[in-house]
Amino acid sequence: MSERLYHVDGDLVPAAEATVSVRDRGFMYGDAAFETLRAYGGTPFRWTAHAQRLERTCETLGFAGALPPTADLRERVGETLAANDLTDAYVRLSVTRGVQPGKLTPDEAVDPTVVVLVSELPRGGVDGERVWDDPARLRTVDTERIPDAAVPAAAKTHNYLNGILARLELRGTDADEALLRASDGSLTEGATSNLFFRHEGRLRTPTASLPLLPGVTREVVLECAADLGVSVETGRYDPGVLADAAEVFVTNSTWELRPVTAVDEWTFPVGPVTRRLQAAFDERTERLY
Amino acid sequence: MSERLYHVDGDLVPAAEATVSVRDRGFMYGDAAFETLRAYGGTPFRWTAHAQRLERTCETLGFAGALPPTADLRERVGETLAANDLTDAYVRLSVTRGVQPGKLTPDEAVDPTVVVLVSELPRGGVDGERVWDDPARLRTVDTERIPDAAVPAAAKTHNYLNGILARLELRGTDADEALLRASDGSLTEGATSNLFFRHEGRLRTPTASLPLLPGVTREVVLECAADLGVSVETGRYDPGVLADAAEVFVTNSTWELRPVTAVDEWTFPVGPVTRRLQAAFDERTERLY
Repeated sequence: MSERLYHVDGDLVPAAEATVSVRDRGFMYGDAAFETLRAYGGTPFRWTAHAQRLERTCETLGFAGALPPTADLRERVGETLAANDLTDAYVRLSVTRGVQPGKLTPDEAVDPTVVVLVSELPRGGVDGERVWDDPARLRTVDTERIPDAAVPAAAKTHNYLNGILARLELRGTDADEALLRASDGSLTEGATSNLFFRHEGRLRTPTASLPLLPGVTREVVLECAADLGVSVETGRYDPGVLADAAEVFVTNSTWELRPVTAVDEWTFPVGPVTRRLQAAFDERTERLY
Repeated sequence: MSERLYHVDGDLVPAAEATVSVRDRGFMYGDAAFETLRAYGGTPFRWTAHAQRLERTCETLGFAGALPPTADLRERVGETLAANDLTDAYVRLSVTRGVQPGKLTPDEAVDPTVVVLVSELPRGGVDGERVWDDPARLRTVDTERIPDAAVPAAAKTHNYLNGILARLELRGTDADEALLRASDGSLTEGATSNLFFRHEGRLRTPTASLPLLPGVTREVVLECAADLGVSVETGRYDPGVLADAAEVFVTNSTWELRPVTAVDEWTFPVGPVTRRLQAAFDERTERLY
């Protein structure tokens, strides 16, 4: 395989030379917005939803005015995929506040740094292959989700230590995703995924009014559920309710719907609603081929 | 002035070429520890305290084992100062978890990226010049300090959006430092500074059991106060107590002790205890010349 090319600040550059200034605020402070998405058959899935969330994140960070137009960003993603001859890929698109004079206080004048990273993924869709080998095993961790009053969870930024500290708690266990609670103890989300579970005959997922990042895949799953006539309840749930869950799965753009076979001491089968929703999801991505 | 040289990953490089990989976790996730310190007469002030805190931060992040020895880090700082012909300087020393395979979950094997940035400051010490032109004007902001249960505040990391969001709230005001409260409403610290105030005849500062970063300068001020026989109380304080404060100041490594003449609608003189502590602090830095 020839060396991967990344898109940095308007140029396609070999991965080994893809860098940002040590004075870029994205590096110094994690002062940057990003999106991770998947391309299926060369087309980014739910591009508009990702672009809109990127813009909302930049609004939260106060530099939405400096965000390049969506069409421009879309072009950079397309160029990066094409340059790497990739049609099925993971894409990470970051926009930082760039280099600025002074220290912590952001300057109004922003020259953003735009970075696109890609890596190869297997084909998705109806006859596709999953990116994960096995269902997920979750563990509730002591690290709590950052409250919205401190940093809004709906903003997807380069400040990812909350999730990293949560994942570090999994060392020495057989779990591969951390389940974080809000400060009131209610279930929020995984370090990089949203949580769904079937309980008392209904599909449930923590409400977006809790500190969590409502994923694009979570939205697609809600659409699929509506199409299939599966009723979904969003709410605040104590982790203990999982003891009685019939099935559990997590979602994110890379994993799509990933069944969960364990949360702490509780185990779950890969359930029928999970499978139906996976199939409905796959039909949607299949349309991009 | 010739171009500044920075120390990146073992080499001194011109500032314009001082970069890190876009895949460095310091960039992707703010997965990095750092210290800001001052050199007086060529010597980093309180090097040991900074080096110890850097190590504690790396312990929190789970990669203390990969931190280069203190003497090595000290040498990089010294080389950077010498290469730039600087004796009085601001120094920012960062250690990231480096580039790793995989995504969010940190790998045990860490090849850290070490970055030293410097910039010129005026001479400090007894006959020195302050780096700030005027006393600080503070404003209590709505952004709350991240609770320790989410990300320990004592860890000084590249995840600085909490402070940035706080500073953004100052836009359109005449304040230049944001005062953050804990989720219980009590005073914690400024976005980049610790808070002290004289109230009911005692010098007070929020307790380090609150979510705040206990600064090295805060420690030096506590030492100076002990030397001068100024009694200091650490505790939990409601912002309202500032209405009756006789004097207020903030501290950090760059500002040293900076008087505060306003917090919201309340105004304060530059008080006698602030001046005595400034003088005692200046005597300590003067010893480095």
